[in-house]
Amino acid sequence: MPNKQGTTPAPASANRFERRRAHTRQALIAAARQILAETGETSASIQEIADRADVGFGSFYNHFDSKNDLFDAAVSDALEEYGQLLDLVTAEVDDPAAVVSASIRLSLRLAASHPEITQIVRLRGLAYIHAAEGLGPRALRDLEVGKASGRFAFADPLVALSAVGGSVVGLLQLHTVREVDAEAGEEMAELILRMLGVPADEAREIARRTLPELP
Amino acid sequence: MPNKQGTTPAPASANRFERRRAHTRQALIAAARQILAETGETSASIQEIADRADVGFGSFYNHFDSKNDLFDAAVSDALEEYGQLLDLVTAEVDDPAAVVSASIRLSLRLAASHPEITQIVRLRGLAYIHAAEGLGPRALRDLEVGKASGRFAFADPLVALSAVGGSVVGLLQLHTVREVDAEAGEEMAELILRMLGVPADEAREIARRTLPELP
Repeated sequence: MPNKQGTTPAPASANRFERRRAHTRQALIAAARQILAETGETSASIQEIADRADVGFGSFYNHFDSKNDLFDAAVSDALEEYGQLLDLVTAEVDDPAAVVSASIRLSLRLAASHPEITQIVRLRGLAYIHAAEGLGPRALRDLEVGKASGRFAFADPLVALSAVGGSVVGLLQLHTVREVDAEAGEEMAELILRMLGVPADEAREIARRTLPELP
Repeated sequence: MPNKQGTTPAPASANRFERRRAHTRQALIAAARQILAETGETSASIQEIADRADVGFGSFYNHFDSKNDLFDAAVSDALEEYGQLLDLVTAEVDDPAAVVSASIRLSLRLAASHPEITQIVRLRGLAYIHAAEGLGPRALRDLEVGKASGRFAFADPLVALSAVGGSVVGLLQLHTVREVDAEAGEEMAELILRMLGVPADEAREIARRTLPELP
């Protein structure tokens, strides 16, 4: 609905209503993201989630049909934010091999700067890799660009996506049991480029290039 | 305690007690495995789990300190069973590249023959890849044998394990959204062998060899 603030009182209060509604929805999603990142589970009650979001219990069902519906929106929200961040940082990079390498290595930097999103990627990311938004479609886009140009060599893009996505989640998992330094990220990028058909010496060089800065 | 059945009545009833105790524990683990495979969640109550296991609520705490403790044992139990199965099938294979390839491709066959374990590997496997038992240590063993003999080329075995484990879980994830035929398994095996440093043409040939039969 277009903003007609000032012409009549009704649209102004409608706007206020819409803003408050959007705020409530976002507060519920933020609470669910926190809970997922902290516990990895979805067993918190709707009352607990509403309390954490500082919204009334009753408003929950104005926004979501069920708790699963909310957690689903929370995971999608986190993955979409992560994907937009990677897009931003790799926007100036042309070579799909360099984009894939930078995205993998940046996931380790993001583990430090964005621990909540990283936890959600680690715990739920793989289950959402074939979703319409988030990280999966972006990675698939980079893989298909590389396949079309002959930079990458594989037959089935979804098999390659499964391997790349799984490897990144595996690296985040390793991060929970021991220190994963930048060198480990470089090696993971090198292994994945080799897997995608980039010659070994070139994979090694690309994986050790200076990384773009995070905003 | 050594079996002295027949010497006095007491050890015989102790044996019965031990057998019943082991049976109760295994029934609880089996129920938790079913619940994990069906729902992916651990939110069932202890009462629900005990009902499904057909044991009394009170006996739960004779075996487990908490629900998390039980679910942890259930995941470990499933992964260990899966690992033993893969060991059995690949026991006659010497080349670590052929072992890795067969294990990856067999994970698709196991998805059909052992759907419950496969669900647990898909949902929880990666979180247990660095556990002392199960699939992780077996895969790490195969990777280290290949690295020691020069068959594989990577620096950090745990980075390679993260990539291989993540890729297999990614393939099982793909299986939930579309048909993943034997050809997709062959391509995944080929990609992973290439990643591990096996030359591309050889990786292609090994990934298409006749698979050992499942028992």
